[in-house]
Amino acid sequence: MTDAAARGLWITLEGGDGAGKTTQAGLLESWLRERGREVVRTREPGGTEVGTLIRDIVLHHRGDVAPRAEALLYAADRAHHVATLVRPALARGQVVVQDRYLDSSVAYQGAGRVLDAAEVRELSLWATEGALPDLTVLLDLDPAAARARLDAADKPFDRLEAEREEFHVRVREAFRALADAEPQRFLVLDASRPAADLAAAVRERVTALL
Amino acid sequence: MTDAAARGLWITLEGGDGAGKTTQAGLLESWLRERGREVVRTREPGGTEVGTLIRDIVLHHRGDVAPRAEALLYAADRAHHVATLVRPALARGQVVVQDRYLDSSVAYQGAGRVLDAAEVRELSLWATEGALPDLTVLLDLDPAAARARLDAADKPFDRLEAEREEFHVRVREAFRALADAEPQRFLVLDASRPAADLAAAVRERVTALL
Repeated sequence: MTDAAARGLWITLEGGDGAGKTTQAGLLESWLRERGREVVRTREPGGTEVGTLIRDIVLHHRGDVAPRAEALLYAADRAHHVATLVRPALARGQVVVQDRYLDSSVAYQGAGRVLDAAEVRELSLWATEGALPDLTVLLDLDPAAARARLDAADKPFDRLEAEREEFHVRVREAFRALADAEPQRFLVLDASRPAADLAAAVRERVTALL
Repeated sequence: MTDAAARGLWITLEGGDGAGKTTQAGLLESWLRERGREVVRTREPGGTEVGTLIRDIVLHHRGDVAPRAEALLYAADRAHHVATLVRPALARGQVVVQDRYLDSSVAYQGAGRVLDAAEVRELSLWATEGALPDLTVLLDLDPAAARARLDAADKPFDRLEAEREEFHVRVREAFRALADAEPQRFLVLDASRPAADLAAAVRERVTALL
């Protein structure tokens, strides 16, 4: 990179289903492109071809996947995704805008399921050789409000979405605890606010990083 | 278990492709059944339905799978396999006869590839909550001899089999080092000996464990 403006930047979006991650990722991408930046939109699980196969196993397999197996599958997807897609894009000076990363694993697997959160985090960091985003936007939303949005969209439930309400409350608490622990990396936004307001708040923080 | 004879027993077979693991597993199974034991024949990767999906990704995906992703996929298969198949079978007092387990991961991934062998072993032990077999039979064979056997059988190569000769030499050394480190768990046999002789040696050791 000889151009200082072309430093790679890695931004992840976190939060429960229905919090508006896809909307915000789209608005951020458009704004970055208007500023002349190359953007790679991606997600976990499933951001690569291998990841798509893994995502199919985790989300749509009939019958239970053992909890440690599920955590390891997410970590495998992550390892492949970071090694073959994220790192190369950052090295080219592109901006990676990513739907979900290790905070989702820690929140869903560690806090929501039966596994130890610290172990799940360690597993992810082993998978990626310690890769952490420059910025993580947490779209924080009451699970009941998120549920109402998803019902309105009439989208089919996947296995995680179908879990009981209480689970989503624990996930939300886990996300907020993660943000509290790393205030420098996280931007926590009240996702019940209008999408345009949220986008402006994201842009402000990203501008400071560019 | 009220019947002492029905204590579960877990036996794994290790060694390179072409060393005769399938033949020995079959002979051992027949002998155990003649003695009235219930036997579960299984393998890794791919001993469960979820495992079959994982195995397909690892062995037959076109294009490279990142090394850590590959190790994590094997560990995910293992976690699911041990939790849903091996442990329940042992709890029922059955004998589990298994083709490949964590020693294969350590030998192939750790010694053969770019990853640290101790880390790969730790990963497997996390996956299975520390599960180790009662007996591991290592069928030790010169890779050139194994190659000749596979050529004679005219079986199609999978991705691992197609790796270069030098790789198989390192794998063999890694297996032998693992056996040296845990002499109580391992039975190392010269796999160039006749199948019937090998089967007799396995039976002798298993008899002591039953």
